[in-house]
Amino acid sequence: MFIRNAWYVAAWDHEVGRTDLLRRELLGDQVVLYRELDGTTVALEDRCCHRHAPLSKGELVENNIQCPYHGLEFDRTGQCVKVPGQSAIPPEARVRAYPTVERNHWIWIWMGDPALANPDDIEDFHWIDDPDYRARGEVLHLEGNYVLLVENLLDLSHLTFIHRTTLGTSAVADTPMKTEREGDLVRVTRWVMDNTPPPFFQRAGGFAADAHIDRWQIITFTPPGFVRLDVGGAVAGSGAEKGDRSQGFTMRNLNAITPETETTTHYFWAQAHDFRTDEPWLTDMLYENVHTAFMEDLDIIKAQQENILARPDAPRVDINHDGGGLQGRRVIERLVEEEQRADGRQAAE
Amino acid sequence: MFIRNAWYVAAWDHEVGRTDLLRRELLGDQVVLYRELDGTTVALEDRCCHRHAPLSKGELVENNIQCPYHGLEFDRTGQCVKVPGQSAIPPEARVRAYPTVERNHWIWIWMGDPALANPDDIEDFHWIDDPDYRARGEVLHLEGNYVLLVENLLDLSHLTFIHRTTLGTSAVADTPMKTEREGDLVRVTRWVMDNTPPPFFQRAGGFAADAHIDRWQIITFTPPGFVRLDVGGAVAGSGAEKGDRSQGFTMRNLNAITPETETTTHYFWAQAHDFRTDEPWLTDMLYENVHTAFMEDLDIIKAQQENILARPDAPRVDINHDGGGLQGRRVIERLVEEEQRADGRQAAE
Amino acid sequence: MFIRNAWYVAAWDHEVGRTDLLRRELLGDQVVLYRELDGTTVALEDRCCHRHAPLSKGELVENNIQCPYHGLEFDRTGQCVKVPGQSAIPPEARVRAYPTVERNHWIWIWMGDPALANPDDIEDFHWIDDPDYRARGEVLHLEGNYVLLVENLLDLSHLTFIHRTTLGTSAVADTPMKTEREGDLVRVTRWVMDNTPPPFFQRAGGFAADAHIDRWQIITFTPPGFVRLDVGGAVAGSGAEKGDRSQGFTMRNLNAITPETETTTHYFWAQAHDFRTDEPWLTDMLYENVHTAFMEDLDIIKAQQENILARPDAPRVDINHDGGGLQGRRVIERLVEEEQRADGRQAAE
Repeated sequence: MFIRNAWYVAAWDHEVGRTDLLRRELLGDQVVLYRELDGTTVALEDRCCHRHAPLSKGELVENNIQCPYHGLEFDRTGQCVKVPGQSAIPPEARVRAYPTVERNHWIWIWMGDPALANPDDIEDFHWIDDPDYRARGEVLHLEGNYVLLVENLLDLSHLTFIHRTTLGTSAVADTPMKTEREGDLVRVTRWVMDNTPPPFFQRAGGFAADAHIDRWQIITFTPPGFVRLDVGGAVAGSGAEKGDRSQGFTMRNLNAITPETETTTHYFWAQAHDFRTDEPWLTDMLYENVHTAFMEDLDIIKAQQENILARPDAPRVDINHDGGGLQGRRVIERLVEEEQRADGRQAAE
Repeated sequence: MFIRNAWYVAAWDHEVGRTDLLRRELLGDQVVLYRELDGTTVALEDRCCHRHAPLSKGELVENNIQCPYHGLEFDRTGQCVKVPGQSAIPPEARVRAYPTVERNHWIWIWMGDPALANPDDIEDFHWIDDPDYRARGEVLHLEGNYVLLVENLLDLSHLTFIHRTTLGTSAVADTPMKTEREGDLVRVTRWVMDNTPPPFFQRAGGFAADAHIDRWQIITFTPPGFVRLDVGGAVAGSGAEKGDRSQGFTMRNLNAITPETETTTHYFWAQAHDFRTDEPWLTDMLYENVHTAFMEDLDIIKAQQENILARPDAPRVDINHDGGGLQGRRVIERLVEEEQRADGRQAAE
Repeated sequence: MFIRNAWYVAAWDHEVGRTDLLRRELLGDQVVLYRELDGTTVALEDRCCHRHAPLSKGELVENNIQCPYHGLEFDRTGQCVKVPGQSAIPPEARVRAYPTVERNHWIWIWMGDPALANPDDIEDFHWIDDPDYRARGEVLHLEGNYVLLVENLLDLSHLTFIHRTTLGTSAVADTPMKTEREGDLVRVTRWVMDNTPPPFFQRAGGFAADAHIDRWQIITFTPPGFVRLDVGGAVAGSGAEKGDRSQGFTMRNLNAITPETETTTHYFWAQAHDFRTDEPWLTDMLYENVHTAFMEDLDIIKAQQENILARPDAPRVDINHDGGGLQGRRVIERLVEEEQRADGRQAAE
């Protein structure tokens, strides 16, 4: 089950245009995304109300989308505005429209009751287009349930094992984390003090392989599926833990996780940095390193999902590192439950 | 659900022989088709009664089919006539046999109660081998429910959108149709008067792109899945609508639609013409043009079926052009229901 | 359903090592197989108790297997012995361990209650590594239920049809078999007297195509899925049926059939011979001939399984040759039922 009354990322801005209309399954809904002539994004149910053909195989006629099969046209509200061969439009001829907002290079979509959609509630991802930062990202497809990915990001002790050639050192998994809650926000903090940098940190921060650094991972989860990482390292003892990061470097790893189905997920992410922002190759290098690591994550989560499907009722044994992941999962489950209770009340009224 | 007490097309004549035995799923049944030594066609359940191996992997021994696994042999009635290693044949050793008739280059099969099979009820497709006509066709595989294809053919307003580069002009969808019923027959008639010919009509009828023609589409549906089109065009005002087609050309588009499963379909069709019948290249050209258009239909119906499976309960909004399709669907649904009621009565007796 | 309290073959010895950890589904369980430093084989549930990642994607740390995801380590008993970042091990942190024994080049596994596992119950396949024999085999993957393969091997009359170019002559299917029971053992014996040898026997025994031989097939089935064939031929009338095989040759065809799922099977087999054992090419040739025949079996059983899935309730008509197969099937079904009744009693206590 999914939280529906929430803003999700539906697409990167460059994925949505006027020629190749984007069909994407989101929370089990088939959605078509396109732009009006002035660039405004539109998201409609990708299923003509007439004979259910996907509108995404049609084309745009000015600001309307035309069904490929029998030519019905719909405007941005989902209202049918033309039926070939007749002048009257049946009033029930409409498809579902989803509120959208374009922000921080992402197209955001509201999958629940449109009356509740407030753009002020969109999560802050300003680092992606903040002039003080450079960022690069992509969308990946995960063959696994989205909460498995939330858990993955809320416990970076897996860096030691899955990403040993890129991001991990044995010190990560050996260091405990602090977990905090602020309402539905979950924050996990880990400081690995006075330790050697992993290969990626050597490249990003210019540290020698045998240098000693203080390394931080400050991870914030907010529902339905946003995980933002404040990560970096500084010369050991230079005061980073107390707030002075001048002897080190900082990156923001920005993740927006959107369920496709119960067992597949759209994974939007970007890596931002505020140092050496005039060196595009560095932005690319950071992106490439994270990409390599994330492909390792997709691989293990896919295998995890296959094992879960093979024996769905197998018990899970929790360990200390699971503090953040468990909090995140509980927030999601509680919000899903609250929505379903509210829907039940509405249905009963 | 399917109408079972009906003649369907099972194969083209050239698909059925004595070497490669044809396995084909029809209405959810696995069927093997082959010929006896004198050419008579046979259709049996493609499942040995002994250990369920497909007979189609075996070979013919004179007029009998021999199971590939343990060598049991069956005659055209489905009766087992040989069991290796024993002289007595178990009386229950038989497979289901389906009545077949070869007519108009097609092998027809009766999928219901054999006692009700009357070859006189086979639908008329004489144009395929009428000496006054030339015809060419094929069998296509549709990944969609067969009624979706019936609806497709009963509303040619889609020509304007799906087939805009071949058969369609905007005038088609803008012109209303007349729908008539004669028992279970549905007839849809559309006359597009005094309009320019589509590319295919220019090639077939020798009209200039800016010529003015009167164009007709007279479509007849009969259950379980036959749609015959009388289509053509004549010089505008030359009297075609009143019966004088001497200033134009006529084609017959002949469709026999056989369900494979609930979501897949065997699509037999041929295009016949009675003009310039001594020019084989023209027969080929007509076939090629229709083939191109039909591949476009298969593509959109497959996408339609996928959307239906993703949300089977989505409502359908009807428009004026749906008159014929709705009638055809209702005829099919009523006949299925009548058969099931009759089966229920039989079971109760 | 499967018999669980039984020894099955899980792998060939050379398939199990310390680098590529072997994941294999057995009786619907996901199992990982590897070796400790001294070569002892270990079989564990291939699903970490923490977050269900497959251990087979991890690596060995001395004698323990380390989860690829978060680094938990397990010993050969399935007990978790290390959790990164904490000193205390949750007592419930363990995965299922399966008893294993290495014997006759096969890794044997006990899929049921470990308390009942007695290596003395392992079936005798000494011919595979007996110094008086030479043998070669492999593991094949069958897309079909394992009992279909047991039935296949207990009725070799199919040689006449499926293997007509290798092992079969028409005389095989025409000759009746004798079926005997000794407890859960089923023995099927067929003597084809004074008949010509099939192509494989010509090559193996050095008989001319028009020679006359007495040929035997003595097949023994024991549950859960072992079929051993004593097959060979001798000069007709030289006394083989009475025990004198000096004028002929003998082979052992050794089959260990392990269910993967209800519709797929791991098929371990080897072909052994005690003549001309110093000619490796001959061992290879015998293997190749049987391999060719077994691929024909996999092909027909796959088609048989597809037909069964398409119409699971189709009745089966039995013939005389089915005596052995029916006995084997009944033994399996009775043992499954007995286990389930015993499990029910345990659950009720």
